[in-house]
Amino acid sequence: MQQLTLGVFGFGVVGEGLYKILNQTPTLQTTIKKICIKNPEKKRNAPESLFTIEKNELLNDKSINVIVELIDDAEAALSIVTTALQNGKHVITANKKMLAHNLNELLHFQKSTGKSLLYEASVCGAIPIIRNLEEYYDNDLLHGINAIVNGSTNFILTKMFEENLSFADALTLAQQRGFAESNPKLDVEGYDAVNKLTELLLHAYGIVTHPDNLLFNGIQNLSLTDAIIAKQKNQQIKLIANAKKLKDGSIATFVLPQFIYNTNSLAFAKNEYNAVVLESALSDKQFFLGKGAGSFPTASAVLSDISALRFDYKYEYRKLNQPQVSKVSNQFAVKVFISFDDVKNIEKNDFISIETWHITNTRSYITGVVAFATLENNDWWKLNNNSLILLPNAIVELDEIEQLKKKSINAATV
Amino acid sequence: MQQLTLGVFGFGVVGEGLYKILNQTPTLQTTIKKICIKNPEKKRNAPESLFTIEKNELLNDKSINVIVELIDDAEAALSIVTTALQNGKHVITANKKMLAHNLNELLHFQKSTGKSLLYEASVCGAIPIIRNLEEYYDNDLLHGINAIVNGSTNFILTKMFEENLSFADALTLAQQRGFAESNPKLDVEGYDAVNKLTELLLHAYGIVTHPDNLLFNGIQNLSLTDAIIAKQKNQQIKLIANAKKLKDGSIATFVLPQFIYNTNSLAFAKNEYNAVVLESALSDKQFFLGKGAGSFPTASAVLSDISALRFDYKYEYRKLNQPQVSKVSNQFAVKVFISFDDVKNIEKNDFISIETWHITNTRSYITGVVAFATLENNDWWKLNNNSLILLPNAIVELDEIEQLKKKSINAATV
Repeated sequence: MQQLTLGVFGFGVVGEGLYKILNQTPTLQTTIKKICIKNPEKKRNAPESLFTIEKNELLNDKSINVIVELIDDAEAALSIVTTALQNGKHVITANKKMLAHNLNELLHFQKSTGKSLLYEASVCGAIPIIRNLEEYYDNDLLHGINAIVNGSTNFILTKMFEENLSFADALTLAQQRGFAESNPKLDVEGYDAVNKLTELLLHAYGIVTHPDNLLFNGIQNLSLTDAIIAKQKNQQIKLIANAKKLKDGSIATFVLPQFIYNTNSLAFAKNEYNAVVLESALSDKQFFLGKGAGSFPTASAVLSDISALRFDYKYEYRKLNQPQVSKVSNQFAVKVFISFDDVKNIEKNDFISIETWHITNTRSYITGVVAFATLENNDWWKLNNNSLILLPNAIVELDEIEQLKKKSINAATV
Repeated sequence: MQQLTLGVFGFGVVGEGLYKILNQTPTLQTTIKKICIKNPEKKRNAPESLFTIEKNELLNDKSINVIVELIDDAEAALSIVTTALQNGKHVITANKKMLAHNLNELLHFQKSTGKSLLYEASVCGAIPIIRNLEEYYDNDLLHGINAIVNGSTNFILTKMFEENLSFADALTLAQQRGFAESNPKLDVEGYDAVNKLTELLLHAYGIVTHPDNLLFNGIQNLSLTDAIIAKQKNQQIKLIANAKKLKDGSIATFVLPQFIYNTNSLAFAKNEYNAVVLESALSDKQFFLGKGAGSFPTASAVLSDISALRFDYKYEYRKLNQPQVSKVSNQFAVKVFISFDDVKNIEKNDFISIETWHITNTRSYITGVVAFATLENNDWWKLNNNSLILLPNAIVELDEIEQLKKKSINAATV
């Protein structure tokens, strides 16, 4: 078992929580030697001698064997992480943007240096999802993932549903509670969620991709009328990161808001909680629930990584190293609900089939089936206040599409 | 990555499920060479040449590197497992009784042979709880476990609550659905649950004990009136395996039925589902949910162990090997509800404090605080149709007891 000496970048709420618990728990055999901060003027709840503003005091200190990176800035974080690995240090990070945008480079540096890069804290807070995917769920047996990975949007959706708050009021409340990123766009428009999906795809299926290659949208256009429709059908709306193995073994994957039944396990995840449903061969569904946003869940996941490092743990990227790695596919269609203010903003001809038109003089909606590639190649569905929400069990495989076409109503009749 | 050649003991629903999926999934690089069965007359859905009734055909076959043990009989299973380890084979088993009753011996054989013994399938079906405790939750950071580990009793309780079935009718239904052990006493009276708790204690806290040393009871005396009282208070009754770290670092642990609020995550586990709530430093609560009873969840967990063995996985028993291993304590008290038919079956003087007497001419009840050691040393609380159910947040530490005594009503007044 290794004795760990940490250099920590950042001393926000996560860093401070970590400092406290390591002090209280000497059996962890882990001490913080130095903490690098940006602003030396700020008052800190730790001895002054611990702090520095000079990153090389940590990165070049041979007695520090682990760097814990807890800063916001993804570019600065990448430089810290890669330098630390090259200097022979293990690294723990919670920076999902840095990770998702630089997977290839980070995989390379882990391989070439032989050092561990652990990042359980970067996805779903305290839920040990990265390690469970890595260790427990074999690629071939994992049929799919449905996950609520962004605590801030889940908090907003919960407040819209349970307290009939408007989107704007719910967002303000989330910010007051400290559940939203400093730039709320990152949460609300799905940028944060797709970063996390990128990480999940690596550990679930060995897929190395970039968030820019994945289709995503957030909840910015959701309206209270959408929520009311969901309620009438005993459903809720959640922002879900989705990966599903299609019949040919390729993976359908995206982040989109979706209607789910109240009986769906994900409906049990309220407020800032994150949740993951894994579907695997034989075992039906596995459900993981834990706090996803906030400082304590993040610190807790960092602690688990510290604990693992004491036993020389590293991700083996098993699925990446398998002979057949799964590929992302867009050869499928999805069942969608799109609410809109003005019918001229709806491209009727982009639908494979249309099931319902519901036109009112305020907010109208259409439901039907759209090829996934159509969503990838067009953006009318998220512009002009159009709000696309997937229907439950949204994915339609190619061989099921003909069947649906027969049931379609004639768009021309509208 | 190892190529695995399996010898399987038992070909019930789990064995058959395993056989099917290994055939369908060649990428697992795992084949079954031989299956040992008891009854050669029974028709099987697999080629006849696979079967034998001679255990040594598996145990002495050098080309078989993994034994999968899926039989009912704990004594026969122990002999198979220890022989297999001694013969240089890895072993996967789902036999919780065999494991819980022979922890010391099995730890010894793993150490002396250097072979893996994996048993994720033995606790909570498809929930990867053993490996999560082993790998992710450091002893020092794990404050407690609350788990529904027996699918059959959970099914019965759900049916009593949701459909007002009597205990007897609910048990019959569980048996018809295949969720109850062949001898229902093992499920219903808590024997199965305490075996699983024994395993959890090892991987959570490094405690090596025997089920006989742990206090447990089942749901055999629960009545519909208990369920009605729970409902009135927005609560449910669940059979819960409990381990909680006390202030002095020792562990309070037992299996007992307990009232829980409907807002408790465990209330979300219905029917044959199992669930685990882990409380750890900073991270608040983690919730795991999955199917616990039935053939498929078990086969799924066996598959995960197979998958891990391909990467030479073995339990490191980290917590067992730590300098300070936690100890089980009985130095605490519990808040209880006991319903009864006849007040003469209640030992009033065994209560530290009494909060409520509720006497009717049918089913009466008492609530109050009892020293845990009193429950260990007496059995009146489970005899004569007395039904003890813990109240929510039942554990009272020594330094809190004096406080409660002040609020006690005078037992003599009744």
